[in-house]
Amino acid sequence: MSFNLFHSATIIGVGLIGSSLARALRNKGLVNKLYGVSRSEENCKKLLDLNIVDEAYNSPIIPVQKSDLIVVCTPVGSVEKVIQEILPFVQNKAIISDVGSVKGKISKIIVPDSVSFVPAHPVAGTEKSGPENGFAELFENRWCILTPTELTNRGAVEKVSTLWTQIGMKVEIMTPERHDVVMALMSHLPHLIAYTIVGTASDLEKQEQYDVLKYAAGGFRDFTRIAGSDPIMWRDIFLNNQNAVLDCLQRFTEDLTSLQRAIRHRDSEALVDWFKRTRVIRKELEEIGQAQPENEKMLLKGKKI
Amino acid sequence: MSFNLFHSATIIGVGLIGSSLARALRNKGLVNKLYGVSRSEENCKKLLDLNIVDEAYNSPIIPVQKSDLIVVCTPVGSVEKVIQEILPFVQNKAIISDVGSVKGKISKIIVPDSVSFVPAHPVAGTEKSGPENGFAELFENRWCILTPTELTNRGAVEKVSTLWTQIGMKVEIMTPERHDVVMALMSHLPHLIAYTIVGTASDLEKQEQYDVLKYAAGGFRDFTRIAGSDPIMWRDIFLNNQNAVLDCLQRFTEDLTSLQRAIRHRDSEALVDWFKRTRVIRKELEEIGQAQPENEKMLLKGKKI
Repeated sequence: MSFNLFHSATIIGVGLIGSSLARALRNKGLVNKLYGVSRSEENCKKLLDLNIVDEAYNSPIIPVQKSDLIVVCTPVGSVEKVIQEILPFVQNKAIISDVGSVKGKISKIIVPDSVSFVPAHPVAGTEKSGPENGFAELFENRWCILTPTELTNRGAVEKVSTLWTQIGMKVEIMTPERHDVVMALMSHLPHLIAYTIVGTASDLEKQEQYDVLKYAAGGFRDFTRIAGSDPIMWRDIFLNNQNAVLDCLQRFTEDLTSLQRAIRHRDSEALVDWFKRTRVIRKELEEIGQAQPENEKMLLKGKKI
Repeated sequence: MSFNLFHSATIIGVGLIGSSLARALRNKGLVNKLYGVSRSEENCKKLLDLNIVDEAYNSPIIPVQKSDLIVVCTPVGSVEKVIQEILPFVQNKAIISDVGSVKGKISKIIVPDSVSFVPAHPVAGTEKSGPENGFAELFENRWCILTPTELTNRGAVEKVSTLWTQIGMKVEIMTPERHDVVMALMSHLPHLIAYTIVGTASDLEKQEQYDVLKYAAGGFRDFTRIAGSDPIMWRDIFLNNQNAVLDCLQRFTEDLTSLQRAIRHRDSEALVDWFKRTRVIRKELEEIGQAQPENEKMLLKGKKI
């Protein structure tokens, strides 16, 4: 059974997340009319060719005037600017939301009483970018974290929560500060490390003038996937979650240094203890159904990746 | 067309790699008789139940006497001990090989002129352990690196090379020293880093007393898979490739520190330049067909993982 949770929705920024959201909203019939906005004419054309929106625009001004839901899906660094740009044009009682990976600053955005802003982060993604790489199932069984403040309209939080639940996510509410620490550790730091080591390996290859990268083994291969993520999106994340990332990085460096010392001093026991502990954590993730990468989920559904 | 490259083979150590090799040898009909050795009675039983060897033994002494190929598939730290143990019993002209992930020390093992030892490293694997998790296709389209010395019998190198080629691998010969640097960077350091960060996250969760790990996002999720690898195998790898791992770790730390500095000083350009460079490397790996994880390869073949 489908019902229109919103009359009309505008998605601003139709990359991997925006276009996946568009597909999911359509599949579930959650909106009556769906508008997509991209500054790039090429992406607007793709949206229509892929038939995932009703109308495509290269500016948000027109579609936001006829939408009761607006989801800003641009890189974190530009969310506030986009919201300020559209505010003079949005309908009375419209709900504005976003999908940004850092919530501290974004959650402090002030909107007039006539509209609501619900900061959200659907924790899902792949290393691919662009509307052609989105898919409706991306969000299934993943977490969506909402970070409303005490000023946020409760009814709007409810509706945004229902929206993400309807397209398969588990919704949690937490403070923006906690969100940013959790994501620094669960997503931002792993990306930073993957970016680092892939660069390190490439430099060594150039310096030593023999093949290294072609022998990419399990481990490095996975890191290259992560290090293939969108550069602008990730620059914005690191600069906007600076403090939490630097704190987590400090913790990580301390731990890495202690394992480095264990290798240098041949401390077998310290190594085995640490490795056994992390193996248990992997098992726990498997048990709660959070271990499988997106690509495998897709393959299991018989999708092409 | 199948042919018996060897008359009889003994595989000592039937974990993920050993049992996958057994399956592959059988599938391709490369040996006439296949013997599996495990100290564990439980694994011996599994080998027979899985029907991947002709006979299973809890000691190598009997089967090596009737084998012209012996492949030691135990953790790196015990390869030399196993070879010394079997040497008094092996046939004249038998070929001994191994699958160890570190080749420096192993390649220096001296054997009598009556037999040959060909150090080998099929670069393939998953985070799973045990004979039940092996599969014949594990090796397909991956590299097998041989590290013979000037003393190694050329004919034996040829035969071992043919063996791995027949089961789908691309074979390369390089010095043990170069192998160990390449693997330190492509496999050992990524594993160390993944082990580290999963422990870091678990410590933070305990200390802050709120859920962190359950929000495992892409990035961290992949790291937990790697950090779920066999503790003893990995302890052995780090202790046996100590120098190359510590050297690569030093390079990595320098690079990570410079990215940390870029985040602290909000150096957008430095971040984007680095991230763009690593994205290109990912594309290159995809182009040479080395980007896909084992699990995806399996799913594409319609296998259960």
